[in-house]
Parts: sequence; structure tokens; C-alpha cells
Amino acid sequence: MRVAVEEDIWHGGDLATARALFPEAPQPWIDLSTGINPIPYPLPALPLSLWTRLPGADDEAALAAAARAAYRVPDHAAIVAAPGTQILIELLPRLAPAGPVAVLGPTYAEHGHAWRKAGFAVEEAAAVPEAAATVVVVNPNNPDGRVMPREDLKRLARRSAARGGLVVVDEAFADFTPDLSIVPELPEATIVLRSFGKSYGLAGLRLGFAIAAPEQAAKLTAALGPWSVAGPALHVGALALADRRWLAAAGEARAGDAARLDALIAPHGRIIGGTGLFRLVETPAAPALFARLGRHGIYVRRFRDAPRRLRFGLPGDARAWARLGAALAADAA
Amino acid sequence: MRVAVEEDIWHGGDLATARALFPEAPQPWIDLSTGINPIPYPLPALPLSLWTRLPGADDEAALAAAARAAYRVPDHAAIVAAPGTQILIELLPRLAPAGPVAVLGPTYAEHGHAWRKAGFAVEEAAAVPEAAATVVVVNPNNPDGRVMPREDLKRLARRSAARGGLVVVDEAFADFTPDLSIVPELPEATIVLRSFGKSYGLAGLRLGFAIAAPEQAAKLTAALGPWSVAGPALHVGALALADRRWLAAAGEARAGDAARLDALIAPHGRIIGGTGLFRLVETPAAPALFARLGRHGIYVRRFRDAPRRLRFGLPGDARAWARLGAALAADAA
Repeated sequence: MRVAVEEDIWHGGDLATARALFPEAPQPWIDLSTGINPIPYPLPALPLSLWTRLPGADDEAALAAAARAAYRVPDHAAIVAAPGTQILIELLPRLAPAGPVAVLGPTYAEHGHAWRKAGFAVEEAAAVPEAAATVVVVNPNNPDGRVMPREDLKRLARRSAARGGLVVVDEAFADFTPDLSIVPELPEATIVLRSFGKSYGLAGLRLGFAIAAPEQAAKLTAALGPWSVAGPALHVGALALADRRWLAAAGEARAGDAARLDALIAPHGRIIGGTGLFRLVETPAAPALFARLGRHGIYVRRFRDAPRRLRFGLPGDARAWARLGAALAADAA
Repeated sequence: MRVAVEEDIWHGGDLATARALFPEAPQPWIDLSTGINPIPYPLPALPLSLWTRLPGADDEAALAAAARAAYRVPDHAAIVAAPGTQILIELLPRLAPAGPVAVLGPTYAEHGHAWRKAGFAVEEAAAVPEAAATVVVVNPNNPDGRVMPREDLKRLARRSAARGGLVVVDEAFADFTPDLSIVPELPEATIVLRSFGKSYGLAGLRLGFAIAAPEQAAKLTAALGPWSVAGPALHVGALALADRRWLAAAGEARAGDAARLDALIAPHGRIIGGTGLFRLVETPAAPALFARLGRHGIYVRRFRDAPRRLRFGLPGDARAWARLGAALAADAA
């Protein structure tokens, strides 16, 4: 049911493609192709009423309160919950004035795609063009972990505000590095996206947020309509976002995992960036390494436009670490 | 976070309002204010991977196949799954040409609201105006159960197609009366909405569908973006929609409940319509009856624009039936 134009985008997590590419690979697949925490937030008991009733205003308010506190949303800003950040990405073009859009890239392809679908001219560049009024920055960036300092973001926001434009800051991978977030001082003309599923390891739940000035937030809320977030997601999200201890421990544990991953893959390529949930590797042997791992039932993320790069997510258990280690140590044959 | 214009719409299921109106009411509240089956489809075991991974293409395909079969989608039509029908209602105005929109009413208020938000002139009328190119029909209608025969819908569709317009048929309450559905012969220029949560009693899950010509469906799919339906909803929906026996038994059981409800409320007003999930009652004493039930902790649906009408959902267990019976039998004092 996907339209043709969307099928051009490669995403992580698509094990059906892995199986088709490597039908002989040992089972089960180890999926390192996403940036999702492999150790999820423990699912709480879910009262049946979360499933049976329409999502309640009380539950929506509890989630919003937990998210405001977790992301340190200032009083002058509003927060909108949605069934995943992706639908917010699709809606953002409605909030911007006509004119070209600059996407700081290379980055998560769905940003440029959404603006193009909405009829905008999109320029993806490694630096923000001087003339840009509307700018998209993934911060830290996926896949290379590049960070734009808060002062630079504020300067961008001032410029966009003066031009009637918009700065979109996608902080999908900022949970473990909260000091990078622009949310606490949300500048004018700025909309921040936060993704729940990645650091909490619950991507199937579908929960994301936009933090914006109240007028912009109201437009997103109106576009989503009522009850957009499912009852279970409201409940799990509210509990998890209030659990600072879990997040801090997860961030520390994943940083340890990332260091362990670095040591494993360093002999095979140059680690050129990443976040606490993934590492980006560059090597001329990337296609061969992708294929070797695939034959061992390990799926990593390759990039159509950057064939020398691979992104590695974190193994989730001892068996996955062992299989990754063995596959990397195996003969290249 | 709702915008002001949305707060004008009264919805069923809002127990916070019930509590505010009747703070002294006995607990727990019996919520008869919705048209949701009070006996839900039994939740299956949900593998953890449905929560942790991004919704998979395999799971999406399995849901689409089950929905195609359940709704008898013809080969020439496509089906789009969404996190609830509501978001599809919000997106429909993108598929229609400019010009006034006729909503056959009175009906579910979110239809007219969505078109108005999108800048369309909306005329809600008891008959479809001759000149209308784009028409919204809820069939069977909520709250009065009015049914537009398939031949009339096809005539409407021919007229709209000739004018470049669109016919939206919201079949949210058609699951128990499948012979009413226009889906199996989907006419040109017609989009049908199907809601999962109501007859399966799982409104918190958020799952709905649009059935349309492939070009229109592709626009909805593109607007939603990938992974719009949560992993658990994909899984539960696919199982439940394939379970014809459960649906048939539920339809029969709810028809029995509706007859029992009719007998209970007949002494208090004229039953002017309904479906297998709710009944609409008219009486000059509706405000007093609403208040009496509220004082007994029973919340029914009232209508701002029709103060003589109340809609009753079905009680879900013996205790709820007993409390409703007692409240109706009590002195009006």
C-alpha cells in the first residue's frame, strides 16, 4: 500500500529485505540496522480499559505532563503527542511558508521526502545555505552523530524568524545527551521533534512529540484530530518518561555497549560518528562487509548514496555480541 | 492541547465531564455514552517484538489482507490502514476538489468539522442538495441509524464522479450489517471508511481503514507516512478481522442486548433509531432523564443541537444492566 515514491527510501528494521538478500543466513536474524535501544523499557501491566475505551482526556493530560517534565518544555511552549514522530514529519510542511527548504544532510531521508511530497523545493546540503528561511536539522544527526551547538541553532532560529520561516530540530537521538537539547529555551520559529520509541526501545508503540509555540502546536493538534495516540501508548509513555532513573541507567549502559562495539568494528573500518544507539563506519570494503555480515544473519544499515558507509546498531544480548564478534572475525571469504 | 474550535464538539466516552457534572454519583461510572461494543474481542498474547520493533512490512501486509477479506474489498480498490478512522477523516479534505461539501446530517460532528478546518464550506442537511459534488454519508448513520440504500449511494457516486467530486461513506457502524456495505462494489469517486474499534470493542487500540481507488489510497498512504499503525494494532487487527465466527456471534449477542435495552427504555421515550451498538431516544424529558441517570452514575450521550434526544450504548454486564434498570425505575426526583 506504500506509494512508489516512498519505496525508494531505505530504512533500517526491514528484515524482509534481509531475508530476501541472504536466504541462506542462519536464524534468527540479528537486526543491527536500526538505532533502537535493544533493551526496552519494561512494559508495565496494561489495564484492559486502555484498549477498550477511547483514549481518555485524563490519560492524554498525564502523558503531556510527563513529557513536558522529561523534555524540560518551557512555559512559553506547547507539546503535541502523536502516534510516532513520522506523522509529525508529514505534517510539518503545513506550518511553513512557501519557498525552498534546506535540510542539513546527509540525514534521515523522510524529512526531505515529506517536504518534497508537499510541493516544496528541498536542498540537502552539508551547510545551511545563507538564503534559507526554512531549515531542518537532525540533532544529533542520524547517521553520523554530528551535533549543531545550541548557539548555532539559536542563530539559525533568529534568522528564520526574521524571514518568516521555520527551524525544525529533530532530536530523535537526544534522550541520552539532554544537554544538547534546544527545548528548554525553545527559540521563536522553532519546532522540536522528540521520538519516544528509540531510546526506550519501544518503536512499535508509536509515540512521538512536537514542541512548538502554542499557535503552531494548535495547528498540529487540529491536523491530527482527537484520540491520535493509542491508550496503551499514553500509559506506557507517561510511566516511562517519568522514570528518570531508568533513562540514566540505560544511557550509561548503552554508552558502554557503544564503546564495546567500537572496539569490535575498529579493525574493519573507520568509525566516523554515531550516538549512544548506533555507530557509523566508513570503509571501501563496506559492501563486502555488509554481505559477510548478512551471510552470518546479521543485518546492518547500508546507504544507497554512501556505499562506503555502514551503520551498526547495538547488539542486545550475549548471543548477539558473540555472533557479531564471530562474523567480524571470520574470513572475508 | 486541543484547539478551541475542537472543544465545541461533544463526544461520548468523556467520563471526566460526567464526573464534573455529577460529582456525587455512585462509583464506578457506567459509560453508555459511546457506541463501542462493551464486550471486546479477547486480546491475544502480544509478542514483545510487536512493541519493540518498528511495525514490519509483513505485519502490515497481513493486516491489509485480513481487512480486504473481512470488508470484501474488490480487486479494483485499495485499502489503507491508519491509527484510527479519525486521522483519515482529517485527511479526506486533501482528496476533494474545492467547492462546497454536503454532509448528510445530523451526524457524527467530526466530519463537518474536518472539512471546515480545511477551508471548505460545509452544508449539513437531511437530504443531499442537488448541486453537491462532494458528499459525506455516515451509513448506517450515527446517532439515528438511518440507512442509505446501496442504489442511492451508487446514484450519488455517479453524480459526484461526473462533477469531479467525491462521496465519502463512513461505515463505522456497518460491521454487524455487512449487507449494507458499498465496499464490495466500490463505485468510482467513492471512499469508504471502516472503523475497527467499535464493533470489536477496542477503541483504545486505534485502528481504522479507508477503501478507495488506488490513486486516492496512495495519497492517503503518502500523507500518513510509514509505520502509522502500531505493532500491537497490526497484530490484534489481523487476528480479529479474520475471526468471522466471533463477529457473527457478537452481532447476534448485541442485537439481543439492543432489544433488551429497547424494552427498558421504551417507557421513557420514543426509540427513533439506532444500530446494533446504540439506540437513539426522543423525549421532551431528555434533559431530566440525562440528569437522573447521571445522578445514578450512568452516563448517556446528549446532543447540544437536539436537547430532546439521548443516545444509549449497551450495558456490558449484569451489574450494569441492573443499575440501568434501577435508575430508570427510580422516581424522577
